[in-house]
Amino acid sequence: MNPFVYEIPTKVYFGEGQLSHLGPELARFGKKVLLVYGGGSIKRTGLYDRIVKEVEAAGLELFELPGVEPNPRVATVRKGAQICKDEGIDVVLAVGGGSTIDCSKFVAASACVDHDPWDFFVKGAPVEKALPLVTILTIAATGSEMDDGGVISNPDTHEKLFTGNMALLPKVSFEDPTLTYTVPKYQTASGSADILSHVLEVYFDMAPGLYMLDAFMEGLMKTVIRFAPVALAHPDDYEARANLMWASSWAINGFVNGGRGVDWSCHAMEHELSAFYDITHGHGLAILTPRWMEYCLSEKTVSKYVQYGVNVFGLDATADPMVVARQAIERTADFLYDKLGLASTLTDLGIDDTNFELMAEKACKAYSGDCVDGFVRLEPQDIVSIYRMCL
Amino acid sequence: MNPFVYEIPTKVYFGEGQLSHLGPELARFGKKVLLVYGGGSIKRTGLYDRIVKEVEAAGLELFELPGVEPNPRVATVRKGAQICKDEGIDVVLAVGGGSTIDCSKFVAASACVDHDPWDFFVKGAPVEKALPLVTILTIAATGSEMDDGGVISNPDTHEKLFTGNMALLPKVSFEDPTLTYTVPKYQTASGSADILSHVLEVYFDMAPGLYMLDAFMEGLMKTVIRFAPVALAHPDDYEARANLMWASSWAINGFVNGGRGVDWSCHAMEHELSAFYDITHGHGLAILTPRWMEYCLSEKTVSKYVQYGVNVFGLDATADPMVVARQAIERTADFLYDKLGLASTLTDLGIDDTNFELMAEKACKAYSGDCVDGFVRLEPQDIVSIYRMCL
Repeated sequence: MNPFVYEIPTKVYFGEGQLSHLGPELARFGKKVLLVYGGGSIKRTGLYDRIVKEVEAAGLELFELPGVEPNPRVATVRKGAQICKDEGIDVVLAVGGGSTIDCSKFVAASACVDHDPWDFFVKGAPVEKALPLVTILTIAATGSEMDDGGVISNPDTHEKLFTGNMALLPKVSFEDPTLTYTVPKYQTASGSADILSHVLEVYFDMAPGLYMLDAFMEGLMKTVIRFAPVALAHPDDYEARANLMWASSWAINGFVNGGRGVDWSCHAMEHELSAFYDITHGHGLAILTPRWMEYCLSEKTVSKYVQYGVNVFGLDATADPMVVARQAIERTADFLYDKLGLASTLTDLGIDDTNFELMAEKACKAYSGDCVDGFVRLEPQDIVSIYRMCL
Repeated sequence: MNPFVYEIPTKVYFGEGQLSHLGPELARFGKKVLLVYGGGSIKRTGLYDRIVKEVEAAGLELFELPGVEPNPRVATVRKGAQICKDEGIDVVLAVGGGSTIDCSKFVAASACVDHDPWDFFVKGAPVEKALPLVTILTIAATGSEMDDGGVISNPDTHEKLFTGNMALLPKVSFEDPTLTYTVPKYQTASGSADILSHVLEVYFDMAPGLYMLDAFMEGLMKTVIRFAPVALAHPDDYEARANLMWASSWAINGFVNGGRGVDWSCHAMEHELSAFYDITHGHGLAILTPRWMEYCLSEKTVSKYVQYGVNVFGLDATADPMVVARQAIERTADFLYDKLGLASTLTDLGIDDTNFELMAEKACKAYSGDCVDGFVRLEPQDIVSIYRMCL
């Protein structure tokens, strides 16, 4: 077990009706607010009007960066940073899901430097400070509302890269489960797969960690498996939406790690898929995860699968470990494809093997250099094999 | 489910060897450090010398408040506050367990006001600010290292009272499990009972809460039940000490509440026991808890006992609910008395029924006025009945 530092100062207003605190919270940071959002959904739902009302009631001045893409582009970050510099923005308000929040993080950071935003990702330019960031979450998925990192895409280079720093952590996040009632089924399913994957990427590790964190991760996974189907069947079920929302934040805010620090295997492989084909991140993870689990199963790793199967799916702890492990993989696939209704192959998404070698190399390059050193060390040829299993 | 605000900005250095960060962290807050500690154990273990070395290496000036009592007295708070005022202390460094940290919280707050510290407890004087507090935890129990409240005793009035405010939250806490290797068996057992009780007090609530938090609480309880006996048998088992330590912080830092806000029943009853008889808090809780569970069991409450029994002790979910509930209470008693080795009655501690009526009234007065409005509403006569069950 490695030593670690725990520090998550983000203040979270959780529950219905909490947006009434938005104005005063924004006002703590200044007068000029840059509202960042994606498509038009926040206008259709009335959330936009609500925000404008709260901001105006607090006597603040509103600027806007609309149109953030589902896999946010560095060009949009550049645009936002320019507004911040031109207008002297005091605080960035991200309204949306992971894409909008990730974009906002790098808008906030880029506003404080003279170099190009992409330098944070490819030139090792450090994120040393950022404008304060407030978020209003509208989809439970990436956990960006309570973590210190983000992913930005550069379509020119087929790159989708991650970087993180405490300065990017939102100061305040609003999590109102009712704001996710209108999330379409496909996004609800993909978001739930994303949350599950965040936990699995940490949980599947053969190094001894803190038992209490394993138990918490098992609780998070049971939460997603229990409530995602409820949210799909009843989009306005408050309990289901609330559990998924709070689980999304805690799956990836760093708490579950407790000193574990291996590479994230499925995320490494998925980032290349969505960089090349612009697919939905959570769906890519859903396709990869059971195949990755299958590929990594061995006598050496089987005990972790058994722990997972017994504690998350209630499988029989006394049965043959390899049998339990395979059942656990099947149950995971069943959840992702049958319960969530996500298509199970890359072929379904129109992806063939054309770029597998290139994507595998890029995945390794973005993580440890020549491999993805996660639960099981994956070299480029291993990653190609896993991609092929997904066809 | 009620809306809630989550905010725990305490930075925690967790793990062996983290004390090397002590000097720089203290230096963030100023030059003059008041070291608060209890008996001589930190001198015997060498921790005192280690701290002096770190503080001196950072060029800071050290002042001392030794001798904090196991149930810290308001007189000691007064003494500490006076030192802060006389010497212009910048930061308070608490080294010890809950008693030392609680005392330090009110030293830090009292240093910023002109009135007597006891006014915070009986005159409703608000805690509005406090000197920054850094803690080094040496026993896993109260969770004071990561929460915003504390309990102080006034022997003159037989009062042991709680108050809390965000200003009291430690800025930085050091949790090095190896520092708890020397905790004696009795304190390890009592501390573990305290952690378990913190979770039970929130978990036993019939109002619908967040499933994911129930799952986390079940994980915390399983952690205590699994590792407390290991720590008793092998005091230097790092895994056991680390799990108990991190569980102690998360049992009571507010995360598990998620909008639940009922009175804490066993704590209400126990605070009177230790106010009148100066017994060890965790031991008092251990004696009360199974009797309180028994007293509150009814057709209306049985479902919560079943959830607890099935998810924490692996009892049979298909058996008769009342049978499962009674087994769950038995398993709890078995853990506290057999596995932890704590004496199971007040009689064992030399306490008879002399003050039961008075204590019951005071317990109600300290909480909701005329009752303790927790899992099951307890009037003074109910509390007397529970005390009698403990004889």
